[in-house]
Amino acid sequence: MAEEQSIAQMMQDMGKRAKVAAAELALASTDAKNKALLEAAGALKKNVRTILEANEKDLDYGREKGLSDAMMDRLALDRSRIIAIAKGLEAIAELPDPVGDTIAEWDRPNGLNIARVRVPLGVIGVIYESRPNVTADAGALCLKAGNAVILRGGSDSLHSSSAIHACLLEGLRTAGLPEDAIQLVATRDRAAVGEMLTMTGMIDIIVPRGGRSLVERVQSESRVPVFAHLEGICHVYIDGAADPQKALDIAVNAKMRRTGICGAAETLLVDESAEAIAIFVIGALLDAGCEVRGDDAMMALDDRVKPASDDDWKTEYLDAVISARFVSGVEGAISHVAENSSGHTESIITEDTETAETFLRKVDSAIVMHNASTQFADGGEFGMGAEIGIATGRIHARGPVGLEQLTSFKYQVRGTGQTRP
Amino acid sequence: MAEEQSIAQMMQDMGKRAKVAAAELALASTDAKNKALLEAAGALKKNVRTILEANEKDLDYGREKGLSDAMMDRLALDRSRIIAIAKGLEAIAELPDPVGDTIAEWDRPNGLNIARVRVPLGVIGVIYESRPNVTADAGALCLKAGNAVILRGGSDSLHSSSAIHACLLEGLRTAGLPEDAIQLVATRDRAAVGEMLTMTGMIDIIVPRGGRSLVERVQSESRVPVFAHLEGICHVYIDGAADPQKALDIAVNAKMRRTGICGAAETLLVDESAEAIAIFVIGALLDAGCEVRGDDAMMALDDRVKPASDDDWKTEYLDAVISARFVSGVEGAISHVAENSSGHTESIITEDTETAETFLRKVDSAIVMHNASTQFADGGEFGMGAEIGIATGRIHARGPVGLEQLTSFKYQVRGTGQTRP
Repeated sequence: MAEEQSIAQMMQDMGKRAKVAAAELALASTDAKNKALLEAAGALKKNVRTILEANEKDLDYGREKGLSDAMMDRLALDRSRIIAIAKGLEAIAELPDPVGDTIAEWDRPNGLNIARVRVPLGVIGVIYESRPNVTADAGALCLKAGNAVILRGGSDSLHSSSAIHACLLEGLRTAGLPEDAIQLVATRDRAAVGEMLTMTGMIDIIVPRGGRSLVERVQSESRVPVFAHLEGICHVYIDGAADPQKALDIAVNAKMRRTGICGAAETLLVDESAEAIAIFVIGALLDAGCEVRGDDAMMALDDRVKPASDDDWKTEYLDAVISARFVSGVEGAISHVAENSSGHTESIITEDTETAETFLRKVDSAIVMHNASTQFADGGEFGMGAEIGIATGRIHARGPVGLEQLTSFKYQVRGTGQTRP
Repeated sequence: MAEEQSIAQMMQDMGKRAKVAAAELALASTDAKNKALLEAAGALKKNVRTILEANEKDLDYGREKGLSDAMMDRLALDRSRIIAIAKGLEAIAELPDPVGDTIAEWDRPNGLNIARVRVPLGVIGVIYESRPNVTADAGALCLKAGNAVILRGGSDSLHSSSAIHACLLEGLRTAGLPEDAIQLVATRDRAAVGEMLTMTGMIDIIVPRGGRSLVERVQSESRVPVFAHLEGICHVYIDGAADPQKALDIAVNAKMRRTGICGAAETLLVDESAEAIAIFVIGALLDAGCEVRGDDAMMALDDRVKPASDDDWKTEYLDAVISARFVSGVEGAISHVAENSSGHTESIITEDTETAETFLRKVDSAIVMHNASTQFADGGEFGMGAEIGIATGRIHARGPVGLEQLTSFKYQVRGTGQTRP
């Protein structure tokens, strides 16, 4: 109880300090923010040894705890990973500063000039798991957009994150920016997360970065608005008017380029009239080492196709597995997507522009594509620079969450003495 | 308990039907939506007598309940008020449809074309008090932006709201749109509000329209994101370089034009160097019938000035009362605002552009003005057409919430067969 109270108090205190820092940061120059990022990158390079020592402690802790090999790999740093983190900071320094941009401007008949101008969002809470690089990536992105950030990393990576955080603080200090701009929750106590999720009035947005169970907890418990996606059940629909080679290239790329990312395709829909293309594409997926789980008609095409269960249509495999079925044209595809998609990314393959436009208009997902691989669902590929994640919510940010999505706006009204009649 | 369960069930059912209607409405043509609005306006005009009879029942109920004169006035309808409501619907039909607008579009080096396109927000919950006209205004605005809406009016206006709602349904039917697009919670049970506030996954945004206690309850209890402002503690700052006549005109207009609106000024700040202007402006406010509560220096200027307490700097009077104090230049004004403002609207009066720009940049409110009355803080005055309210939050909507703010967006990506390397 005393412990819980002190965690609550600690978090409240961090929240207050973040708000003060956010007010200062909102007015910081682009130069100062970039200097902090570049100096932090320099500190990372200079302190490789210290960071690796800290990482060694985390790896010891992880071994004792019996973490899986995959988790140990996510946790592990080496010189090249640290250099990559530093380069990430330098890349964010290169991005244009969104703060102060005029988004829209117009004049009123009474002579008032009205401008909608970008300002920082305020205070961002980032809750993540074992990858220590998120400390730098998320901290830097929030900073560049003029926000204060409270970082709550996984307990497994506490030492590594702290060592990386120390480099960010060195950057802030050198640039003359408040150290409270990037705070790290330095406790393994999980009560800190629960506290963050209720800090309305102090934290403006929570961004969870990690596996399904983390995102699910944050989405269900948070009183603070959340930018996230729970899963990416992405669809590729091959229309009757598809170019067979494009269909094959895109389907195989969408599924197999990287199977573990949220933009990977999980379900292949094929127009009933495109049986020949289906044989061609399914064969290529199977040849590429992908397991295909199909409806009866798909199973009839290739005896390597396994039967799909009802659950398969709502499953994010994140693996070399795809569900596949025939649908009745683009409307059948749209219905299937409406019922089963997680609202992340869907793509139609067709040479018929009208059919494509129907799909692009009617499918209600964050990202809808025509003749392109769902694996392009990424802030970098969209030209936004770095992203902190992909959101499937409908409020404020939808799709890749980059610098612009980490801002709010205000109205500046310029008059010459106008009063309202 | 059984009653509570049935309210919960009723609301869940309404939520599900709203989601189905929202999916249909998202694809409805502008013509169909406009037809629904115009037919509803026609139905209102045709059914004036029925609506007045329903209103009479509410007024009887209100008299029995002993409602105040002000509340009875808000509740009361007459022919001209009903005609005004109908004209409001016609005006919303005239506004451009935001759905389908391309907000941004760009090409990538690999040839992908990316467009950010406006789509409806989804399902909006509107919780309001005794004014029955909100039924039509809010219903129409949500409809025009392609959203389904669940309206929960004050229990005092249940009959009037139901009669107006029937006209909206007639409009939807005639236009071939789903009646579930505009649903009215037809119960006086307050549990319905509590239920709405927890319907994440069914309701995308809650908009409370009413007094402070309603907004406070919604903001503190809602699990669904909220567009609202709790209060409008708006400031007018008269700089040392202000034009005295502009200062007087704007200060008197900002306070006295209508004292009961959220954009009315509540505090006057004057630069220490502008004592002569202060005498001039304070005198005009007092002469206009405004009570002035000042610091010692203000009291020394005019013996009609009453002493301000500490609370006065954080009070929204919504009445002919203003607090007034001297500050040390624009930085003093910015500090006072940062400490006391509700983040709604603030205005600086000065002929010095540089000082004005400092104020516009540094003050972190939804609307910041230069040489203009705070009473312009209004969607109509901004040229947005009708508004559903003003938001002081930082997420999604800030400032006037009009049609555009009631939309979300999605990305449409058009390719020619691109796969990700």
